[in-house]
Amino acid sequence: MNDHLSKAQIKWVRSLQQKKHRDAEGLFVAEGEKCVNDLRQAFELVLLATPDNASSVEIEQMSSLRTPQGTIAVFRKRPIVSSPDRLIASSPECLSLALDGVQDPGNLGTIIRTCDWFGIHHILCSRDTADCYNPKVVQATMGALARVRLHYVDLPNVLAGLCQQGIPLYGTLLDGQNMYDNNAIPDKQRGIIIMGNEGNGISPEVRQLITHPLFIPSYPADIPTSESLNVGVATAIVLSEFRRKQ
Amino acid sequence: MNDHLSKAQIKWVRSLQQKKHRDAEGLFVAEGEKCVNDLRQAFELVLLATPDNASSVEIEQMSSLRTPQGTIAVFRKRPIVSSPDRLIASSPECLSLALDGVQDPGNLGTIIRTCDWFGIHHILCSRDTADCYNPKVVQATMGALARVRLHYVDLPNVLAGLCQQGIPLYGTLLDGQNMYDNNAIPDKQRGIIIMGNEGNGISPEVRQLITHPLFIPSYPADIPTSESLNVGVATAIVLSEFRRKQ
Repeated sequence: MNDHLSKAQIKWVRSLQQKKHRDAEGLFVAEGEKCVNDLRQAFELVLLATPDNASSVEIEQMSSLRTPQGTIAVFRKRPIVSSPDRLIASSPECLSLALDGVQDPGNLGTIIRTCDWFGIHHILCSRDTADCYNPKVVQATMGALARVRLHYVDLPNVLAGLCQQGIPLYGTLLDGQNMYDNNAIPDKQRGIIIMGNEGNGISPEVRQLITHPLFIPSYPADIPTSESLNVGVATAIVLSEFRRKQ
Repeated sequence: MNDHLSKAQIKWVRSLQQKKHRDAEGLFVAEGEKCVNDLRQAFELVLLATPDNASSVEIEQMSSLRTPQGTIAVFRKRPIVSSPDRLIASSPECLSLALDGVQDPGNLGTIIRTCDWFGIHHILCSRDTADCYNPKVVQATMGALARVRLHYVDLPNVLAGLCQQGIPLYGTLLDGQNMYDNNAIPDKQRGIIIMGNEGNGISPEVRQLITHPLFIPSYPADIPTSESLNVGVATAIVLSEFRRKQ
């Protein structure tokens, strides 16, 4: 049983809603019993606030949710992996995701949750991708952050290195090959799938590295529709195609 | 060139952020030049606010966005179709979607946008599904509302009728058939794909009507992951599988 939280602790938990404080302390916040329990399996618990040690008003003060869920935890971030590319390249099943400037926390959270479903364990992120420890991202992952690791890197540089090691780089481009074609994906176990920014897609520096451009065809192919799919949706469709048996 | 908007008009536009006012007036609001231009192709324009007839402060007062985009339009809703089930059943390509209690406006908007991409023109919605004219939904559709029609109906009743006409009812259930199996989807052109509420899935009344339960397998199949996919993501994965050539 913990002592009742102090005013200073409550203020400190709330400060972790801001990236600069999360970065300075190497900590982040998660809410909701299920999410917190999932994350305890992967992250060191630093502080737990429940109705046992905080009033409902205090929980509200610490919460980033409109409807606070009664349980708030502070966790220590994972240590930064110095060479995530080596980790990915050396794994026999190296299928991974790369995000080039995904901005919306809801989209990033949904993408992490989808990666968890489809057994993708590593996501390489450009440095301008949303922070995976942002409270909105953490909540949208529904606990999947415990099983999926994000690595913020100099993306063009890291992808160029992986490409040199013969790892296929996939990306969805308007002039890519129909993703459903039999030969569009030569080896479904191996490669990096690159997804781009909500408005601008994949940046020019990264685009030129793509070895296997893919295209998600609309239906019917000859009638114009929305110009694009939501990036979380496009990621899910591509991952489903990679994880499909044939 | 319009006259400058009056204070009463500005107040009236803002009132349409609330469902009761949208329902009473049969109107809704859209923002952003691209979205407004897309919707003009399908909806009657009632009022247009631009920097020509409203100051930036007034546009901010009318806007539901954090960063108003300069163009705000009031449109008349489409008339309600009295028998959408007949419309769907009589169309040679009747593949449609049914939403049973989807609550989140962002999810609904994304689903409408995905339907547009995959050539799904009709969505049957239970009456507790989010309002498709909610400003957050309208913005998330990115103009797709011009090409996709939503029908709010007594869903169990309407689906039972469609089922009696021999139209297959698909739904994702945990004990469904692997969606990627060759025989899981006998006819990809014909059927209703049912998706459920974010927390509770498909309601018991609707679930018992499903003729073809489907399951999106996680990967690898024998390792536990997140219990679920976001409903917008799951919809996209299922639609991609229906629109895939084989």
